[in-house]
Amino acid sequence: MKILVLPGDGIGNEVTAQAVKALRAVTANGPGFEMTEGLIGDAALAVHGDPLPEATLEAARGADAILFGAAGTYESDLLPPEKRGGHGLLRLRKSLDLYANYRPVTAFPELIGASTLRRDVIEGVDLMVLRELTGDIYFGTPRGVHRDDRTGERVGINTMRYTESEIRRVGHAAFRAARLRRRKVCSVDKANVLETMALWREVMTEVGRDYPDVELTHLYVDAASMHLIRRPRDFDVIVTGNIFGDILSDAAAMLTGSLGMLPSASLGEGGRGLYEPVHGSAPDIAGRDLANPLASIMSSALMLRLSFGMEAEAAAVETAVRHVLAEGYRTADIAEPGSRQVGTEEMGDAVAAAI
Amino acid sequence: MKILVLPGDGIGNEVTAQAVKALRAVTANGPGFEMTEGLIGDAALAVHGDPLPEATLEAARGADAILFGAAGTYESDLLPPEKRGGHGLLRLRKSLDLYANYRPVTAFPELIGASTLRRDVIEGVDLMVLRELTGDIYFGTPRGVHRDDRTGERVGINTMRYTESEIRRVGHAAFRAARLRRRKVCSVDKANVLETMALWREVMTEVGRDYPDVELTHLYVDAASMHLIRRPRDFDVIVTGNIFGDILSDAAAMLTGSLGMLPSASLGEGGRGLYEPVHGSAPDIAGRDLANPLASIMSSALMLRLSFGMEAEAAAVETAVRHVLAEGYRTADIAEPGSRQVGTEEMGDAVAAAI
Ligand SMILES: CC(C)[C@H](C(=O)O)[C@@H](O)C(=O)O
Ligand SMILES: CC(C)[C@H](C(=O)O)[C@@H](O)C(=O)O
Repeated sequence: MKILVLPGDGIGNEVTAQAVKALRAVTANGPGFEMTEGLIGDAALAVHGDPLPEATLEAARGADAILFGAAGTYESDLLPPEKRGGHGLLRLRKSLDLYANYRPVTAFPELIGASTLRRDVIEGVDLMVLRELTGDIYFGTPRGVHRDDRTGERVGINTMRYTESEIRRVGHAAFRAARLRRRKVCSVDKANVLETMALWREVMTEVGRDYPDVELTHLYVDAASMHLIRRPRDFDVIVTGNIFGDILSDAAAMLTGSLGMLPSASLGEGGRGLYEPVHGSAPDIAGRDLANPLASIMSSALMLRLSFGMEAEAAAVETAVRHVLAEGYRTADIAEPGSRQVGTEEMGDAVAAAI
Repeated sequence: MKILVLPGDGIGNEVTAQAVKALRAVTANGPGFEMTEGLIGDAALAVHGDPLPEATLEAARGADAILFGAAGTYESDLLPPEKRGGHGLLRLRKSLDLYANYRPVTAFPELIGASTLRRDVIEGVDLMVLRELTGDIYFGTPRGVHRDDRTGERVGINTMRYTESEIRRVGHAAFRAARLRRRKVCSVDKANVLETMALWREVMTEVGRDYPDVELTHLYVDAASMHLIRRPRDFDVIVTGNIFGDILSDAAAMLTGSLGMLPSASLGEGGRGLYEPVHGSAPDIAGRDLANPLASIMSSALMLRLSFGMEAEAAAVETAVRHVLAEGYRTADIAEPGSRQVGTEEMGDAVAAAI
């Protein structure tokens, strides 16, 4: 059971260290994992001139699961695209064909106050955004900026592209996920304007026929962005393309107000997966023991469940997180009057101890 | 002063009729407008087999302003794209080169309770989304679904495309609008992934140099969708492309909880504009005197201001709306215990009387 740990940039380092602690704690009495560390993002760029060095990609191919922190910082945003930290992550997802990105969004009862939504609206929210991760306008060609011969001005082009089989496989993933939940899939597209998304809707409808026990609905992406804010509790599984998923999953993550709590898993056909907190590298608070490690720790729980089939251990990690929250432990981002404010390290220790 | 009235489909009819009343009331003592009516959307399809008949397009070309209701219903979603109500609207925007879509989002103090956001978060929100309306993936070619020769499977393609000049003109519109407001522009893109959006950011930055008195910031679209929910008060003018604007402007509209109150204006180079409520055709409540006409009425105020330079009359309409709200008049969508619930028609009459 090989785990590649890629802390990456910014707070990625601090939070990943706490998730590693949790993984060690929960397997303390068993054979344990073989964990190695690798470089990605700006950290890799600094050493190898590439945000996804060949060595990292090879190690990832050889691993059963990858624990990822965050990649990219404000500074690398000024570099050419292929040098940016985020591109290391994009290439890793694509190279391993990790096409299904699962982002469960749960309103923790203890943290409802951190939401900017009204308590009565956010209470009980339990949804999952399933974002397609290896297609769409992220990877479609032709792309780039060229100069128009006639007018002499620059023109930017990107290509949204989906094949039937790309849509079908993420569709099946959505319905399978819904069967483990409340059996509702909402497919989000822009079929009224984009032919690619009309194909998306058609294929989702076809796939849905194989799952008569799951309810399938469709929403246009603009309507979905409204419904998320208006009636978040209505949703169970939301499945959508890469770019719409990028936007909607971040909106959904912000609803509960506890971005620092939200894990994600990216899976392909086998059991190999990449696990990462939904939050980014947050360079402004990096290295100051301020970051919330719970999203990374919850990501390691998803790893235990989805890549290693260790349901009991996954549940133990999740229970430990709920336990420390109930005990009043809070990092700065979710602190409230009366709570016990702790740093990244202390929160990680508390969870490991609770495990 | 010629106004073309295009009620369109669903509640478009009822709400537009109330805006016409307001326009008549506010110009009762002047020369008045020459108003004609035309067909668009499903209503036009039924008569002419086309959601934007040539006669309507001609009338629009000859008008100084267009008062639009809504186009498309659930039924027309099942038709081929070019027959759908919404496509009539897309073609009208494109044919008249109405590239700048202004959507002011204001939290009405009387209606804060209708928001799903916490009162302390939504109070004082006063932002404007400026969405580019004639470019992007909405109109880019190549587009369509074809069969891959090699695999035999269907592939959908759409093209995001922006030229420098398309970005520049909407950029100038954003900075000009910010000068009439709080002098802040936030440009939203996905420059870290899409070359088209990197060009967008570059051109916006260039345009910004002409407006040293206006603060320019940039956000990735995923971050923007979070910030809108987290700190909506931070925003003044948000400028973005057509597809991101479609999603973000609907999210922004939903924040205040009073979608039935929000107007929009679409302008090109001259003074000619198209004015429409942000809400859609809502076929489920159409014809039942339930719809809120205030968004359409507020749209007519924007028309008075932006196409006809009639600031006093525009303000009179807006003041009348605030007056009826203060008096407790509410349509069903914004009703609260203790308010005076009225239908579409009565609300329209109350506003006209207050004018
Ligand atoms: C860093 C960036 C390239 C990435 C994306 O757009 O996919 C991020 O926003 C995410 O959602 O993981
Ligand atoms: C009806 C549809 C084509 C349209 C759009 O996507 O532009 C609508 O959502 C809007 O925002 O006006």
